[in-house]
Amino acid sequence: MELVTPKAHTRQTASELKKQVGTEVQVTGAVYRVRELSSNFCFIIIRTDRELIQCKLEGSEHRIDPRQYAEGNYITATGRCVEEKKSPHGFEISIQKIEVLSKPAAEMPFSINQRELNIGLDINLDARPISLRHPGQRAIFKIQAAIAELFGEALSDIGFTKIHTPKIVFAGAEGGANVFCLDYFGRKVFLAQSPQFYKQMMVGVFGRVYESGPVFRAEPHETARHLNEYTSMDFEMGPISSFTDIMEVETYCLRHILNRLPEICLTELELLKVTLPYIIEIPAIRFSDAIEIITKKHTITDRDDLDATSEQVLCKHVKQEIGSDFVFVTHYPTTKRPVYAMEDPNNPEVTLSFDLLYNGLEITTGGQRIHDYSMQVEKMKRRGLNPEDFESYLQIHKYGMPPHGGLGLGLERLTKQLLGLQSIKEACLFPRTMNRVTP
Amino acid sequence: MELVTPKAHTRQTASELKKQVGTEVQVTGAVYRVRELSSNFCFIIIRTDRELIQCKLEGSEHRIDPRQYAEGNYITATGRCVEEKKSPHGFEISIQKIEVLSKPAAEMPFSINQRELNIGLDINLDARPISLRHPGQRAIFKIQAAIAELFGEALSDIGFTKIHTPKIVFAGAEGGANVFCLDYFGRKVFLAQSPQFYKQMMVGVFGRVYESGPVFRAEPHETARHLNEYTSMDFEMGPISSFTDIMEVETYCLRHILNRLPEICLTELELLKVTLPYIIEIPAIRFSDAIEIITKKHTITDRDDLDATSEQVLCKHVKQEIGSDFVFVTHYPTTKRPVYAMEDPNNPEVTLSFDLLYNGLEITTGGQRIHDYSMQVEKMKRRGLNPEDFESYLQIHKYGMPPHGGLGLGLERLTKQLLGLQSIKEACLFPRTMNRVTP
Repeated sequence: MELVTPKAHTRQTASELKKQVGTEVQVTGAVYRVRELSSNFCFIIIRTDRELIQCKLEGSEHRIDPRQYAEGNYITATGRCVEEKKSPHGFEISIQKIEVLSKPAAEMPFSINQRELNIGLDINLDARPISLRHPGQRAIFKIQAAIAELFGEALSDIGFTKIHTPKIVFAGAEGGANVFCLDYFGRKVFLAQSPQFYKQMMVGVFGRVYESGPVFRAEPHETARHLNEYTSMDFEMGPISSFTDIMEVETYCLRHILNRLPEICLTELELLKVTLPYIIEIPAIRFSDAIEIITKKHTITDRDDLDATSEQVLCKHVKQEIGSDFVFVTHYPTTKRPVYAMEDPNNPEVTLSFDLLYNGLEITTGGQRIHDYSMQVEKMKRRGLNPEDFESYLQIHKYGMPPHGGLGLGLERLTKQLLGLQSIKEACLFPRTMNRVTP
Repeated sequence: MELVTPKAHTRQTASELKKQVGTEVQVTGAVYRVRELSSNFCFIIIRTDRELIQCKLEGSEHRIDPRQYAEGNYITATGRCVEEKKSPHGFEISIQKIEVLSKPAAEMPFSINQRELNIGLDINLDARPISLRHPGQRAIFKIQAAIAELFGEALSDIGFTKIHTPKIVFAGAEGGANVFCLDYFGRKVFLAQSPQFYKQMMVGVFGRVYESGPVFRAEPHETARHLNEYTSMDFEMGPISSFTDIMEVETYCLRHILNRLPEICLTELELLKVTLPYIIEIPAIRFSDAIEIITKKHTITDRDDLDATSEQVLCKHVKQEIGSDFVFVTHYPTTKRPVYAMEDPNNPEVTLSFDLLYNGLEITTGGQRIHDYSMQVEKMKRRGLNPEDFESYLQIHKYGMPPHGGLGLGLERLTKQLLGLQSIKEACLFPRTMNRVTP
């Protein structure tokens, strides 16, 4: 028997290589660009996991055939690391040896080695495995990865427990017809619209829980704001003293993400020329007050909901008035919120709920949930739902639940707004929309 | 407009409360047990997010009506923290005031406040929202949460990027009929059996990627080892110099998890009386050699695969011979591995692949993948697949991929084996099996 030992197999970053100026180093990656300056001198730029490393190949002892090391080849270059002020990282590698690890079968269908990726969104999405190799494209997802990790880090730090809840479910939690159905060994089941019921169940177990996972919405529209499958970053907590607790924890969490992002992906933030907002506090405005503000600038057809334009108008107003990119809208009408939403005891027409808008787009829906058994059963009946269909969910109310609540934060929407992207599809590795399930 | 400030709303743990002996403290949680010792003295044990806190209520000024604070009530108890050697945490709270936050509608259907949860597995799973409140049950998932977080931490530390790939897919990556189908706006699509194609695509982008997410297998059996939806912890990496790199990174990752677990959840490991294994290195044995060892003790019907008993026999042998709980089995027969598996250039009958067995159960499948375009297209054709159906996947091979590979590690299986559970259903919050989609 052989023995496998633990090894990290890490590769050196540009900043680590720079410390080795004067010594022989090795760089492995894809050939990003070959620039032939003469018959015996060329630059080869290597795309590593995160950076572009400038290498040069010179001298008659190296008969240069650029086709041999063309774009898309994976190579290991060995050579002396030399100081070079004109190179982006302040050094370059004078190649002594190249080992070709693999060769592509075809030339790139479009150019990924220019500053801008000059292709339309549909071509980009069709060729996602290739277009994502563009440094500007992949930077979006390095930042997104960091956001997702920081969301977990922030919550884990303050006593939240990570949970894994099923995506194949017996009932749609959010109501409505926008749910995908599937056959499960002869039974009709659904894809989870949210982890709602499960994270509530877990409040009874751990008090505070979070989950980042896929959710599915069968909404038949194709817009710049909607995906049919997206990553929902959810948390749920109890006991709470009021639904403000939930907004305070979200504010805490967002501030943590924004503060730590530059430590983790400064390279990518600079590449995309992103200026991050800074959170000290977030204003909160009642839904009914928001409607008053909006109607001064925009004609609303449904006074019980905010359409896309309403969200933009309100955010613009808040930005002008108090300089915040974020605004909580609270106390949404009861008719527009799901059956589990807690109504305001002072006015049952509205719920103890909120949305968080960021630069004109809703990125979070949250609120307090009903914890009392009779109240929940009655509300189900009023909505024409049969409590028996929710028997397993209602166990939490029946055997004791604290006042609790939580929220869902859309990872792609947050990414889109933070980076100022035009469409949410740009903020998703492999978007699923009404017309797209490939790649 | 009101302003919402960032607040963590953390609650005090037992060890923090202990430091406050002699002062007034507050504890919020569910009443776990009331023990009435006389008409004016009783113990109330409060179940907090993670612990059980002993409180006492005494004196004639508090007319005690235990029904008022019965099991399942959520309360906030305020009182003096006093040293008490006989209490599990070395202190107890002498209650001055109780605020009841919520009341259950019914008495518990079974007892969750005894050391053992004395109910059968089916009752446990039917009443999951309640049975998980048992300290021994929830300890399983505190440990599982830590495993999942540590998997990400280990990989993130060594340059892996977290990815989010779609679960609604155009093709099943693992082949076979065990895939759930669904209607997607009039199109037949599938639930992902693994993130295989997508994590390979992302190797071309970030080099090293990982994902923890749900995967779906429509396998029509009900066993102690199978779930129809489970959490797969995946990573994929390239360029690699050999498929041993992948096993070395997995060994690194498992060692990190096992070393750090006690720092994060010692309380739970002690509660469940778990002795963690210690990894220095992991033996690797070729599949063909494994078969020779197994046949000495067990009659094998299919010499191209390892059945459940074979895995157990092999692990027992390895444990006896060299004391390891883990063993890699390498070079599985090509016929038993998916179309993307790289064949051994020295013997195309076997693949550069492996399983990791832990105490008699396969917890990981991994290996090197084909990176060459022609090789992959040819293999698809040999298997009767139409390469045109995989056009978007084949972009990676066409436009250049490094030698690469990766693996999937089943979170529930790892949890089951680590904690010595009888069934994998005990290691899943809300298991999905052929006969179960509720709660």
